[in-house]
Amino acid sequence: MSSADVHDTIFKALADSRRRAMLDLMKAGPMTTGELCNGFPELDRCTVMQHLGVLEEAGLLIAERRGRRRWNYFNPLPIKEIHDRWIHPHAVGAVTLLARLKRDLEETDVR
Amino acid sequence: MSSADVHDTIFKALADSRRRAMLDLMKAGPMTTGELCNGFPELDRCTVMQHLGVLEEAGLLIAERRGRRRWNYFNPLPIKEIHDRWIHPHAVGAVTLLARLKRDLEETDVR
Repeated sequence: MSSADVHDTIFKALADSRRRAMLDLMKAGPMTTGELCNGFPELDRCTVMQHLGVLEEAGLLIAERRGRRRWNYFNPLPIKEIHDRWIHPHAVGAVTLLARLKRDLEETDVR
Repeated sequence: MSSADVHDTIFKALADSRRRAMLDLMKAGPMTTGELCNGFPELDRCTVMQHLGVLEEAGLLIAERRGRRRWNYFNPLPIKEIHDRWIHPHAVGAVTLLARLKRDLEETDVR
């Protein structure tokens, strides 16, 4: 897979608010699949497992089976990768744009 | 639309390497649809227009018609929003994780 394809997969995995909420929950520490299901009572277990599969495919989740339990670890490194290569440079562009807007508005005020 | 839905739409719009490449091109300045089509000779005009529509829906592109030409402006503000609310905090988490890994590895070396 090219790095463009890898980035597509990461963005797609993040493009669902429930999957983002799952990562937010796991940020505090690894969780069993059962604990994650309890956190999303509106979703059935099968749907939760599907979302976890999408996150795992994007490298955002690392799963480890211990006995009868599956522990899910959040891996933030793919997010850092799209942050550094793509999101951050454009976010800086936005800050520059906002600063210019502010200056232009202030100059308009003075006139 | 809730802010979660808005963020879904932004992430989905970014989940395609050609759409990201279009934004990269427009970063330097506004472009006509014709110029954008020339930048992607492998895509037909209809496909380029579809991609621009997805970007526009996510607020990442603002279009302005002047005479027979449609000028496309890149708007980085939605990227700043997902950066500040979501990407940046997790990217910081990744940096902390990498620093801990480095320290653990160095401690293992010393033993």
